[in-house]
Amino acid sequence: MAILRHKKSKLVEAEEKRKDLGFGTQITDPDTRLLNRDGSFNVIRIGGNFWRRYNIFNELIICSWKRFFTLIVTFYLVLNFIFACLYQAVGIENLQGVDLSTTGSGFMDAFFFSSQTLTTVGYGRIAPIGFGASTVAAIESLLGLLIFALATSLLYGRFSRPVARVLYSDKAVIAPYLDITGFMFRMVNEQDRQLIDLQVEVALSMLIKQNDGKTVRTYDLLNLERSKVNFFPTNWTIVHPITEDSPLFGMSKDDLLANDAEFLILLKATEDTYNQTVNSRTSFHAREIVIGAKFLPMFSDPTGSGVVTLDLNKLSAIQEAPLSSEYHPQYKPNN
Amino acid sequence: MAILRHKKSKLVEAEEKRKDLGFGTQITDPDTRLLNRDGSFNVIRIGGNFWRRYNIFNELIICSWKRFFTLIVTFYLVLNFIFACLYQAVGIENLQGVDLSTTGSGFMDAFFFSSQTLTTVGYGRIAPIGFGASTVAAIESLLGLLIFALATSLLYGRFSRPVARVLYSDKAVIAPYLDITGFMFRMVNEQDRQLIDLQVEVALSMLIKQNDGKTVRTYDLLNLERSKVNFFPTNWTIVHPITEDSPLFGMSKDDLLANDAEFLILLKATEDTYNQTVNSRTSFHAREIVIGAKFLPMFSDPTGSGVVTLDLNKLSAIQEAPLSSEYHPQYKPNN
Amino acid sequence: MAILRHKKSKLVEAEEKRKDLGFGTQITDPDTRLLNRDGSFNVIRIGGNFWRRYNIFNELIICSWKRFFTLIVTFYLVLNFIFACLYQAVGIENLQGVDLSTTGSGFMDAFFFSSQTLTTVGYGRIAPIGFGASTVAAIESLLGLLIFALATSLLYGRFSRPVARVLYSDKAVIAPYLDITGFMFRMVNEQDRQLIDLQVEVALSMLIKQNDGKTVRTYDLLNLERSKVNFFPTNWTIVHPITEDSPLFGMSKDDLLANDAEFLILLKATEDTYNQTVNSRTSFHAREIVIGAKFLPMFSDPTGSGVVTLDLNKLSAIQEAPLSSEYHPQYKPNN
Amino acid sequence: MAILRHKKSKLVEAEEKRKDLGFGTQITDPDTRLLNRDGSFNVIRIGGNFWRRYNIFNELIICSWKRFFTLIVTFYLVLNFIFACLYQAVGIENLQGVDLSTTGSGFMDAFFFSSQTLTTVGYGRIAPIGFGASTVAAIESLLGLLIFALATSLLYGRFSRPVARVLYSDKAVIAPYLDITGFMFRMVNEQDRQLIDLQVEVALSMLIKQNDGKTVRTYDLLNLERSKVNFFPTNWTIVHPITEDSPLFGMSKDDLLANDAEFLILLKATEDTYNQTVNSRTSFHAREIVIGAKFLPMFSDPTGSGVVTLDLNKLSAIQEAPLSSEYHPQYKPNN
Repeated sequence: MAILRHKKSKLVEAEEKRKDLGFGTQITDPDTRLLNRDGSFNVIRIGGNFWRRYNIFNELIICSWKRFFTLIVTFYLVLNFIFACLYQAVGIENLQGVDLSTTGSGFMDAFFFSSQTLTTVGYGRIAPIGFGASTVAAIESLLGLLIFALATSLLYGRFSRPVARVLYSDKAVIAPYLDITGFMFRMVNEQDRQLIDLQVEVALSMLIKQNDGKTVRTYDLLNLERSKVNFFPTNWTIVHPITEDSPLFGMSKDDLLANDAEFLILLKATEDTYNQTVNSRTSFHAREIVIGAKFLPMFSDPTGSGVVTLDLNKLSAIQEAPLSSEYHPQYKPNN
Repeated sequence: MAILRHKKSKLVEAEEKRKDLGFGTQITDPDTRLLNRDGSFNVIRIGGNFWRRYNIFNELIICSWKRFFTLIVTFYLVLNFIFACLYQAVGIENLQGVDLSTTGSGFMDAFFFSSQTLTTVGYGRIAPIGFGASTVAAIESLLGLLIFALATSLLYGRFSRPVARVLYSDKAVIAPYLDITGFMFRMVNEQDRQLIDLQVEVALSMLIKQNDGKTVRTYDLLNLERSKVNFFPTNWTIVHPITEDSPLFGMSKDDLLANDAEFLILLKATEDTYNQTVNSRTSFHAREIVIGAKFLPMFSDPTGSGVVTLDLNKLSAIQEAPLSSEYHPQYKPNN
Repeated sequence: MAILRHKKSKLVEAEEKRKDLGFGTQITDPDTRLLNRDGSFNVIRIGGNFWRRYNIFNELIICSWKRFFTLIVTFYLVLNFIFACLYQAVGIENLQGVDLSTTGSGFMDAFFFSSQTLTTVGYGRIAPIGFGASTVAAIESLLGLLIFALATSLLYGRFSRPVARVLYSDKAVIAPYLDITGFMFRMVNEQDRQLIDLQVEVALSMLIKQNDGKTVRTYDLLNLERSKVNFFPTNWTIVHPITEDSPLFGMSKDDLLANDAEFLILLKATEDTYNQTVNSRTSFHAREIVIGAKFLPMFSDPTGSGVVTLDLNKLSAIQEAPLSSEYHPQYKPNN
Repeated sequence: MAILRHKKSKLVEAEEKRKDLGFGTQITDPDTRLLNRDGSFNVIRIGGNFWRRYNIFNELIICSWKRFFTLIVTFYLVLNFIFACLYQAVGIENLQGVDLSTTGSGFMDAFFFSSQTLTTVGYGRIAPIGFGASTVAAIESLLGLLIFALATSLLYGRFSRPVARVLYSDKAVIAPYLDITGFMFRMVNEQDRQLIDLQVEVALSMLIKQNDGKTVRTYDLLNLERSKVNFFPTNWTIVHPITEDSPLFGMSKDDLLANDAEFLILLKATEDTYNQTVNSRTSFHAREIVIGAKFLPMFSDPTGSGVVTLDLNKLSAIQEAPLSSEYHPQYKPNN
C-alpha cells in the first residue's frame, strides 16, 4: 500500500499547481482574454432553460439608466395600447365620458383612460360602467399597483446595490522600486463615497509550453508590497516587487507577449454608506504593460490652501523611468 | 482525580466522532433520506404556536411565481367581495352613482367601487356619501395603502433574495482519477448572474452496524482535490480522490447500497450583483452513483469563433470509463 | 526598567480575568439579572438628546404587530382630524361637493375628504377649489405619498429583519453525561424557516467574595461538548461536561444560589431565506436549574409513517435522572 | 544573486514601517488633521466625471433630515410649476373644470391639477381633455409613480442604513492605570438600539524628523488593555497602557504637540436590529488630550431602585488625577 501513500503526495502537488481561480487550464487560445477590462468573463453560455438562465430582474438592476428608462417608457406605452384595445373590445361606449365623435377620438380617450388607471391617478372624467369595462379596469388597476411595487423594487435595487466604482490606470508599468524593479498599477475610487478595508490580489496567467510539448495555462499569485489598506481616500499604487522568486523575474516585454501574459486583478472592499462588501475586477494584458515608466503624483494644490487635493484625471499619467541594468539587465525600456 | 482527567480525553474522542452536521446519529431508518435533492430537510415539525412556527411572509417570498400570483388575485377578489358586502350592509344607496336598478347591478357596482378604493384609483363615478359608507371607504383605502406597501415588500423580497441556482449533475460517478479513482459530481451556475468565491463541503453519511449490534449513522467529511474557487464562469467538477484513508476505499456499489450511503453536498458562494452569501445543498444517494463512468466535456464551439462556449444541457452527460483493477480490484463497472 | 516589564505580565493577567462580555465587574447587586430571558439588557439609560437616543423607526420595526397597527390607525385618525380642521380654517365652502347643511356634516365631509387625499384615492365627489383649500390638499397629498413610502419601508423592514426565533427550554438541568455529569439546556427553532451554521457560547457569571472582602462579579466561558452545527432541523441539546476544571465542579444548587449564578447564552446563526446572520440571547439563573433531571426525547411518530417528526411542545419535558455519587458526591437531586 | 535575497528582507522591513492605514506618509503639513472628529477624511477630490464621482442617491441617504425635506418640498414645487407651464403651453382650456376667469386663476388651477396628477390623487374636478393635455398628464402621472418609488427607496435607505451612533468623550486623558499610566478615552452608544461584538483599533500618527532631516508621518497601532467586547449596554473606557514599548512612553504634552500627534480611532460593531456591521471613526489631536485626569463614573441611581442607570450626559466628565512620578517622571499634570 506504499504506492497509494505515494499517490497522496502527488495529489497535493497536483493541487498546488492549480491556482487557476476557477478558469481551468484548458483555455489555451492565445487570443482569448480571461477577464475583460470591465471585470466580466469571456464565456458564452448556451442550453438550459432560457428563462431560468436569464434573470430579467438582475438585468434591470445592472443595465444602464438610459436602457432602464427606455424600457419603462416602452412598457408603459405598450401596456396602455393593449388595454386601450381591450376597452375597445368590451365596447368603448362603456367608458362614461369618452369622446365618441370619431373612432380615433374614442381610442385615444381609451388609451389615456388606461394610463390614468395604470398609474392609479383615476381622474374620473372617463370612468367604466358595466361589468366588462369595470372588470378590465379592476384588472388594470391591480396590475398598476403591482407594477408600481416592482418599479419601487427596481429603483431601490439599483440604488442600494453595492458597487465598487474603482478606476484603474490604463496601463500597468514596470518601474524602479527601491533598488530593484516592480510591477505596478494604480487605482482610485471614482466616487466620493468612501471605500474602506480594501484587499487586493494579483494573479499572473501565462501560456507555458510544457516539456511534453503541450501548452497549458499557468496561474501564479504575485507577492505584493502591500495587499491591504484600511482607508482609501486618495490613490493606491499596487506594487509587486520583482524579486528573484517572482514569475516575472528576467522576462522582457517580448517574453510577456509571447506567453500571452495576463495580470488578473481582484479587489474586495467595504463601501462606507451601507457597509456592504463590494468587488471589483480587471485585468492587464501584456499589451497594456509599459516597461521603464513610473506614475506621476496625483496630488495638486491649485488653491494653495494646504488641503490635500487629488486630481482623478492624473490617474494614468506616467513618465519614463529607466530601469537599472545592474540588477535587471533583461529590462530595457522598449515601449 | 486521575479518573476525571481520563474522562476528558474520552470526551474529545466522543466529539471527534460526531461530525453529524446537526442531523444526529439516531436517524437510522434506511428509507429516510437526510437531504432531499433540492436541499430541503426530511423532518416534520408539529406543536408550538402555528402562527409563530409558520412564517407567512417567508412562504410568500420562497413560493413559486404561479402560486404567488394566484394568491394575490384570490386575495384581491375575496377582499373586494367582503367590502362589497360591507357597503351593502351600510346601505348601497350611500354610494353615489351606483346603478340601483337591480340588486345584482348594485352589488356589482359596489364590488367595482371597492376595487377602485383598494387600488386607490378612485375614479369618483361612484363615491361614498354619509358616515357609514365614507367610513368603510376610509378603512378600505388605508388597507389598500398597506397592502400596496406589503406587495412592494414582497416583490422586492422575492427579487433581492440571495439564491444560488446551482445545477448538479443527475448522477455522481466513480471514475478514473490520475492513476487511482475518484468520487466526482459536476455542477454549473444555472443563471448568467455570476457566482464568486465558491466553497464546497462533501460529507458521507452511512448506516454502520457497531460491535454491540446497534446500527448508528456515521458521518465523514471527504477530502476534496479542490474545495474553493474564486470564479465560476464555466462548470466545476468536484473530485474526492479515493485514497487509502477514504471511507469509500474498497467499497463496491453493493456495499454503498447496503450501508444506505448518502453524500451530502454543502455549497457556499457569493453572488456578484448584491455581494450576498448564498447557500446551495443537495445530496446523492447510493442509488444515484454510477461506477466506472466519467463526465463528458461541456464545452463546444458551434460557431467556430474561438470563444469559449459552455452548453448547460451537457451537465449530466457521462461515458463509460473502466476503472483500473490494479489499484481498485473491488470496483467493477456494475451500473 | 525591569519593573515595567513585570507590569506587562500583570496586565495580561488582569485582562485574562476580564471575560466580562462587556457587562463590567461592578454590577454586584444580587437581585440584578444581567440578561433577561428574552435577551434584553437590564440597564436604564438617561441623558443625551432624547430624539437621538430614541430611534422611532427602530421602535416601529421591533414592536409587536398589535402595537404597530394601533399606532398606524391612531396616526391616520389624528392626521385626518388635523387636516379636517385645516380645511375648516381655510373655509369649508372651498371644498366643492361638501354637505354644508350642518356644521357637523361639513366637518365630517372634510374629514373623509382628508382621508381620500391622504391615501391618494381622490374620488373627486369632494374636491378643493381656490388657493387655500387646494394648497392644503396639495400638502396633504404629498404627505400621503411620503407616509405611504414610510409604511412600505416599515413593513419591509419588519418582515425582512433577520431574527432567530429560537425557543429555549424553561429550565436548564444538571444531568448524567457519559459517566460524569453535565450542565444541559435544550433549544429548537420556533419557525419552519431554516437556521444553519449555528454557533453557541455559554458564560457563567457569579458573585464571588474576594480575599480582600470585596464582592466582584466573575465571568467564565464554559467548555461545550459541541459548540457548532451546520444544520438545525430538529432540536439541539447544549452540554457543558462538568469536568474537574469546570467552575461548576463540586457546586451544589445552594452554592449556585448563594453565588447568584447566571448562565448567559449567546447564539449566532444564519437564517436560510436571506442568508443573514441572526443572534439570540437568553440566560438561566440559578433558580432555573434543575439538578438530577434529564430531557425527554422530542421525536414522535404519531402516524407511523417512518418520517422523523419533532414535537415542539416537548421542548421543556424533563424526567428525574439520579446523578452517580461515585464521581459527584456533592450533587444530590434536591430540586 | 545573494544581493536580491538581501533585498527581500529589506522589503519586509519597509512594509513593517508602513502601517499607514492608507493615508500615506507624505501628508506632512502639521495643520492637516487626517480624520475629522466626525470620522470624515480631509481630502479634496477633483477631476473625473462629476456625475460619476458625485452620487446623488448616496447624498440623499446621508444628508440631514432638514436638508432632505427641504429638497423634497423644493422639488415638488418646481416640478408642479414646470408642469403648470406645460399645461399652459398645450392650452389651458384643455383642462376641463379649470377656472378660466383670469390668467392667474387658470395657472393656479393648472398648478394644483399638476400636484393632483403627480401624487396620483386625481380628484377629477379638473381633468385633461384632448391629445395634448392628456399626454402631458400621462407623462406626469408616470413620473409621479416613479418619484413615489424613489421616495420609498430613499426613506427605506435612510432608515435601514447601518450607522453606529457612538458618542466619544470630548477629550482623551492620560490617567493613572494600575500602577503605571494609560491613555484613555470613553465612548457610549448614543442610541437605545443595541450594538454588539465591538472591536476597536487605535493608531497613533506623528510627524517625526528622520536622521536625513526629512519629516515623515509615522503610524503605530497601540496595544489596548482590551479591544473587544460582546455587549455594549453601558459605557466603555478604552485603555492603552503606557508601558515601556509604547510610542507614548516618556512623552510630555509638549512632545505630543510638537510631533502633531493624532490618535485615530476605528470602531467596528454589529447593530442588533438588522445584524449589520457598522463602523465609527474619530480622532483625538494632541490638543484634545488632558494629562493627569481621569473619567468620572457614568452610573447613577436617582430613583434608588437598584437598577443600573447610565447617564449619557456624564460621558466627558473628568477629574484631576495626579500621575505618580515614580514610574513616569516625565508626566507632570500640565493641562
